Amino acid sequence: LIDTLPQTLIWSDDVLSVLDQRALPKKIEYLHLLHIEDAHFAIKTLAVRGAPAIGVAAAYALAQSMQDSKLQDQEFHQQLMANATYLKSARPTAVNLAWAIDRVVAAYQEMPYKRTLVDCAQAIHQEDLAISLARGEHGAPLIQPNWSVLTHCNAGSLATSRLGTATAPMYTRHQQGIAFSVFADETRPLYQGARLTTWELEQAGIDTTLICDNMAASLMASGRIDMALVGTDRVTANGDVVNKIGTLNVAILCRHFDIPFYVACPSSTFDPATPRGQDVVIEQRDRDEVIGRHSTALKVLNPAFDVTPHELVTGIITEHGICAPSELRRQLSDLQ
Amino acid sequence: LIDTLPQTLIWSDDVLSVLDQRALPKKIEYLHLLHIEDAHFAIKTLAVRGAPAIGVAAAYALAQSMQDSKLQDQEFHQQLMANATYLKSARPTAVNLAWAIDRVVAAYQEMPYKRTLVDCAQAIHQEDLAISLARGEHGAPLIQPNWSVLTHCNAGSLATSRLGTATAPMYTRHQQGIAFSVFADETRPLYQGARLTTWELEQAGIDTTLICDNMAASLMASGRIDMALVGTDRVTANGDVVNKIGTLNVAILCRHFDIPFYVACPSSTFDPATPRGQDVVIEQRDRDEVIGRHSTALKVLNPAFDVTPHELVTGIITEHGICAPSELRRQLSDLQ
Repeated sequence: LIDTLPQTLIWSDDVLSVLDQRALPKKIEYLHLLHIEDAHFAIKTLAVRGAPAIGVAAAYALAQSMQDSKLQDQEFHQQLMANATYLKSARPTAVNLAWAIDRVVAAYQEMPYKRTLVDCAQAIHQEDLAISLARGEHGAPLIQPNWSVLTHCNAGSLATSRLGTATAPMYTRHQQGIAFSVFADETRPLYQGARLTTWELEQAGIDTTLICDNMAASLMASGRIDMALVGTDRVTANGDVVNKIGTLNVAILCRHFDIPFYVACPSSTFDPATPRGQDVVIEQRDRDEVIGRHSTALKVLNPAFDVTPHELVTGIITEHGICAPSELRRQLSDLQ
Repeated sequence: LIDTLPQTLIWSDDVLSVLDQRALPKKIEYLHLLHIEDAHFAIKTLAVRGAPAIGVAAAYALAQSMQDSKLQDQEFHQQLMANATYLKSARPTAVNLAWAIDRVVAAYQEMPYKRTLVDCAQAIHQEDLAISLARGEHGAPLIQPNWSVLTHCNAGSLATSRLGTATAPMYTRHQQGIAFSVFADETRPLYQGARLTTWELEQAGIDTTLICDNMAASLMASGRIDMALVGTDRVTANGDVVNKIGTLNVAILCRHFDIPFYVACPSSTFDPATPRGQDVVIEQRDRDEVIGRHSTALKVLNPAFDVTPHELVTGIITEHGICAPSELRRQLSDLQ
């Protein structure tokens, strides 16, 4: 299965290439990110997107940005820090971006060689692959035979190095030969569900139906959805889940209809430094994403994320297993 | 105020013209519906839309379709019935369509002259205008000063002869000089909120902000929405509300956040013959409306309406006042 999934990121000859997710599914095109500005732009415009994939891409971009540097010692370190800050500014909400960049910087501070940067980025990349396999194994049994799973946005293969976050349990379950189906929210305003999730799940042979975001309630009312499974960009210390706008909507509907609501992510998405979801600064994106070609509205809101309070989350699936959101902090600190 | 609102329908020289709502807000164009097939097509493709407006348009279209008929007596009556059935098939869910057509037919059966048909259609049109004023007066006090009102789809002036259903209390309150603001759900897949509601409310000078359907939960969580106010295509005998897909979603969010959820409609939208919402056949529309230019999904659902159970509805606003949904049946039969 894993080899049939699209390659979101390719690192070859010290150059990072990413599958351009703005062009999908109509065109399959790779962007070669030769300069740090290219990487910043690719992350900002969602050519590469999804919390884990952004982390891996930023780690590579930071490493690559210093490979041709003629600076030495303190000056090299200063430039590295400046590049790190610049890359982090591309998308403020995704905690994996800052996490991956900080890890590359820390590795360099430990072993101050150019090659350390690349080695660390490659390690992050390999770990993301391994972690997605573990997440799939843990989450797959949650999907009962013949169930229908609702997902929102694209927390898929395209959002990570391979198996995806919310999709890892789906791909693993599918490989186990268990029949189930997926309803994919189209996910306005950028249609990540309509463009990306339906495309990648169909390619893997999983029975997938596209719906508008506002149709899920109606499907739940008629008993056609058995669980929801989404990704996340950040889990705060208390277990609140920051994810694509509309996730809170799904969680509230699940609570109303008594449907389990699961979140899948790598443990690096956990942000113990931020106490609660409401402490996270939510990225406000351009009004034109909502307006499109059809509206002439003057006032528009376009928050990229919302906060699902931990009490609406049935469980969080990581590479270490499944736990209640309020237990995640203790589970991860026990492992350290 | 009323004269500044757009004219949804114009009846002049025995010809019905409708403002083409597919072209709005980019183009303001009227369609002249010379033949019954034109009217059927205009209703089916949502050039004219909204439960009350569809009723008025269908009444005129039926009257007009018989004006040049050379048939007599029984043959005339048979043709009238055939035309009535044909027009009803244009949109199966909206009860006002059937209600208006049945009323024109009944008027003819009472007074079998061609002119009866036109007189009855004009009476329906005039009543719809008067009813919208009464609805506005009853509903306006619900909107407290400085409140924010969430609405879904377009239950506006464009959906009726003038003041709208959900918008009648808004227009009336605005005219009373009370400040409040509106959040308009864009309403996928056809963007009636993004195209029509924002346009007509802005034209009237009401502070209106466009959001995607999946953003309402986030706004409610931060205390930015004080009430929801929507229209409906049909209220069943037990008070269940059949309205544009996504309405149930809004109602469940309101219940979760303890926000009042009101429905406004003419009393002709009440359908005592249908016991419960789940007994209504929901129109399934074309997959291409959801797919658009951006998706390649193979399987798509596109239900045009959903059912909000009466227990989620705070009150129903009609020309007779405000009542609990379960009280509507008794209120209307007391009036007869």
